[in-house]
Amino acid sequence: MAEALEPAAEDHTGPARRFETPLDLRRAARSGQFGGQTSGHCPGALQVNLAILPADLADAFLRYCVRNPKPCPVIGVGEPGATGIPGLGDDLDVSRDTPSYRIWRDGEPIATVPDASPYWRDDLVAFALGCSFSFEDALVRAGIPVRHIAAGRNVPMYETTIETAPAPPFGGPLVVSLRAFRPADAIRAITLSERYPQAHGSPVHMGDPSAIGIADLSPPDFGDPPVLRDGDIPVFWACGVTPQLAIRTARPPFAITPDPGHMLVTDVNAER
Amino acid sequence: MAEALEPAAEDHTGPARRFETPLDLRRAARSGQFGGQTSGHCPGALQVNLAILPADLADAFLRYCVRNPKPCPVIGVGEPGATGIPGLGDDLDVSRDTPSYRIWRDGEPIATVPDASPYWRDDLVAFALGCSFSFEDALVRAGIPVRHIAAGRNVPMYETTIETAPAPPFGGPLVVSLRAFRPADAIRAITLSERYPQAHGSPVHMGDPSAIGIADLSPPDFGDPPVLRDGDIPVFWACGVTPQLAIRTARPPFAITPDPGHMLVTDVNAER
Repeated sequence: MAEALEPAAEDHTGPARRFETPLDLRRAARSGQFGGQTSGHCPGALQVNLAILPADLADAFLRYCVRNPKPCPVIGVGEPGATGIPGLGDDLDVSRDTPSYRIWRDGEPIATVPDASPYWRDDLVAFALGCSFSFEDALVRAGIPVRHIAAGRNVPMYETTIETAPAPPFGGPLVVSLRAFRPADAIRAITLSERYPQAHGSPVHMGDPSAIGIADLSPPDFGDPPVLRDGDIPVFWACGVTPQLAIRTARPPFAITPDPGHMLVTDVNAER
Repeated sequence: MAEALEPAAEDHTGPARRFETPLDLRRAARSGQFGGQTSGHCPGALQVNLAILPADLADAFLRYCVRNPKPCPVIGVGEPGATGIPGLGDDLDVSRDTPSYRIWRDGEPIATVPDASPYWRDDLVAFALGCSFSFEDALVRAGIPVRHIAAGRNVPMYETTIETAPAPPFGGPLVVSLRAFRPADAIRAITLSERYPQAHGSPVHMGDPSAIGIADLSPPDFGDPPVLRDGDIPVFWACGVTPQLAIRTARPPFAITPDPGHMLVTDVNAER
């Protein structure tokens, strides 16, 4: 499963072209001209994870998100069959504007595609969930080194032994992302991230990884190996890949998510 | 030095009588009926450290405080010779209302007394500096175990190798207080304490004590030995004993401070 969710290797080198406006990026993704990760693009714009599910599972999934606000902060939800989400952007199509999608059947990813519109159905409901990029931007603006960004890597992510609050059929383990800092920077990262509850908020753990069931930091379950320096404290935040494991647990007949790291970039100001 | 600043052993057992109103506590201290530590008394009232210095050193000391806001958050300052401090309380006398004082000559404590008024001089300036009790109250209200409070002990404090920003003749090492928590509680303690910048704000360090020059957590330089449990993360906050070491460094001919842990309880709401 870990291998199947790894982003493609060419995504790690960072964007060749940096998009400034969300609409430009969405149009490039929609036309197939841009298929990369969205970290670092459109500074100041809120980026969101997507979870797209059949309407008969939408209520249960929304309950799951409400019960697990740290990994699954709900930013918006669409009407059944609608490819737009109120409030996130005028010319915005959740089936086409994310650079890379994962298609799920019976709780397993079956394809990674640049365009999910051929899979669209009239009964699908789209959820926009917060992602960590807003608070990472805040760390960078505050001059706090974010080691995986400086190294041009994807953030390392881990399945934990912390169980999310279930909303049957959804449930399963919490996934966390790891960022390591000097102790004084770790303190600032904690206080800064708390100001972004819609970007997973403050961390859920720090220090000993084994306390949350992570036997070894390298390799991670998803993303790239961590960059740790002597004296660093590892700090763990709830991660937006958690709902993908909830989909794995629920085994819905059909679902669409982003390829991890490939977010929907909205017109919303990330500092709202 | 460490031994000289140790509070008396009988202070550790907690108050036999808990004062509810600041004026009641100040009057009991003034009359000599109460000489104990003030932690846990007068919930909701702002408690402050005092530093009382000759007027010719007051400007330099105020510069020192402004340059070191985490250990020395300035809450108020009196006029030369005045035993009141504007804004802290109507019937408030800094020379008598603290339960226990330390008298300093040439940078060394020479006496611990219940009443500093016999030492009062017309050229003395009183500074009120924030103390950690406001944020400890917030931790307790949030249900976060504060191990030294639960054990009825004084908080452990340590000299570090972190130098404060000097304002000659004031300078010297930063003193920190230690509180240890489970990792998830440590994260909440960090975010809660940041909301109280006048109670030392967010911590200055966590994790490895040797990184800030603390070779051994037990015994501490001041206060009681720490209570640490398996898996705890030690978290270090700037401490209000720091200005006492700045007085030790400056060696002023005369100074008055509180006995550590014996604060001036003001009429100010701690949540202001």
